Amino acid sequence: LAVAHQIAFIGSGNVAWHLAPALDNTDYKVAEVYSRNPKNAKALVSRLYEAELKHSLDFSDSQSSIFIIAVNDDAIVEVAQEIILPEDAILAHTSGSKALSVLGYSGTEHIGVFYPLQTFSKNKKVDFRDVPFFIESESAQAQKVLTSMAKVLSKQVQSINAKQRQALHVAAVFASNFSNHMLHVAKDIMTEKKLDFDWLKPLIAETVNKSLSIGPENAQTGPAIRKDIQTLDNHLEFLSSDEEVAELYRLISQHILDKYK
Amino acid sequence: LAVAHQIAFIGSGNVAWHLAPALDNTDYKVAEVYSRNPKNAKALVSRLYEAELKHSLDFSDSQSSIFIIAVNDDAIVEVAQEIILPEDAILAHTSGSKALSVLGYSGTEHIGVFYPLQTFSKNKKVDFRDVPFFIESESAQAQKVLTSMAKVLSKQVQSINAKQRQALHVAAVFASNFSNHMLHVAKDIMTEKKLDFDWLKPLIAETVNKSLSIGPENAQTGPAIRKDIQTLDNHLEFLSSDEEVAELYRLISQHILDKYK
Repeated sequence: LAVAHQIAFIGSGNVAWHLAPALDNTDYKVAEVYSRNPKNAKALVSRLYEAELKHSLDFSDSQSSIFIIAVNDDAIVEVAQEIILPEDAILAHTSGSKALSVLGYSGTEHIGVFYPLQTFSKNKKVDFRDVPFFIESESAQAQKVLTSMAKVLSKQVQSINAKQRQALHVAAVFASNFSNHMLHVAKDIMTEKKLDFDWLKPLIAETVNKSLSIGPENAQTGPAIRKDIQTLDNHLEFLSSDEEVAELYRLISQHILDKYK
Repeated sequence: LAVAHQIAFIGSGNVAWHLAPALDNTDYKVAEVYSRNPKNAKALVSRLYEAELKHSLDFSDSQSSIFIIAVNDDAIVEVAQEIILPEDAILAHTSGSKALSVLGYSGTEHIGVFYPLQTFSKNKKVDFRDVPFFIESESAQAQKVLTSMAKVLSKQVQSINAKQRQALHVAAVFASNFSNHMLHVAKDIMTEKKLDFDWLKPLIAETVNKSLSIGPENAQTGPAIRKDIQTLDNHLEFLSSDEEVAELYRLISQHILDKYK
């Protein structure tokens, strides 16, 4: 198979860790990796077929045509300012929240956002077929190239604008980060009382299963939706040794009470 | 098959809706159903083989030996006070939070809690094999009968005490009701911006999948754990039209920031 495009990755965090090898297994080739963290960069290079470890952001002699910035949101501007790109390069970041325009500092006009809507942790494999990709760009060329690249990985590729991406990202924080945090708090309560977290697993699996099947608005149960004030009070009493968790309980229960009024 | 026990159900809500037919499909027989809501009671009876619709809580002539109160927590005391039981009856409620002792008002000494740790909605089938049951009792007779009954349905039956049941129930509220509510808020944000909630489904499925596989404490991602204050501020700004949701966002993010300090 001919190599469609050579790609350079800037960053070696959770997103790059999964995205770079996934692309490298297609007819795209990840040719270069740069990261401020040389240990992580090396580890990522070792997951790729023939990628070169880069030690600077000077890509003026690079053969790559697509440059993917997958670093912490706070570092994206800095990379865009420092990076030196070859002519006609396409530059994208993978962030749900950073503005497309920060990539303008790079000097290239072919900029876009290449946003995979998924949660990435290094020690958990990701199947990209089911990961929706969202492309935001004002450059027809970047839009086309990034969309093609996403379609190689995923069944679901959408073009969106900045406002939609922000809404998507906030929704994703609730759907993923916050729901996971609720499981974390539950585990802490179980552990504190020497109960087995595994006992909650069928409940957790069924909760999500049901929520995805009939919709979260039809799936809610528990003391708040039943307006069972006595139980809510007992639970707050139970949680009173941890003020922050008690406040979480109070506020979320109140929101459920208010929504199903 | 001989009928091991005849069971009477008091209540026709989500728990009775699933539990009564499940028991009726074993060598236990659900013989009677009473509910304050006659329409629901009738609908539940129609899900059972030969159950009789009862119109009062006077069970003095009943052939049932096990009486299961599956009503709203707030109504359990009232039922226990009103119910008239045959001799040697075993009386249980299915609540995660109500004290065992409220059943004492019934006058019988064979009382217990028969608590299935699952989320029940009428329009979503439940597979009881994977539902953990928790039995709390101070009567050896009730403990034995309720444990046997639970084992007919489930692979996982545990004996617990009152304090453990309370912790379990609070943990379950976070693990199920609150995590579902996070999905509900996410759906609202998507709907408000005319985005397709389905786009979040692979993320939601993978979040839980990962959390159950490597533990929620190892699975967290997103702006709060990255200490990405700029994104947190942008999201709060985005949510500023809904004060309650913004406050939820702020409090949960703060708790994540504090926990992973």
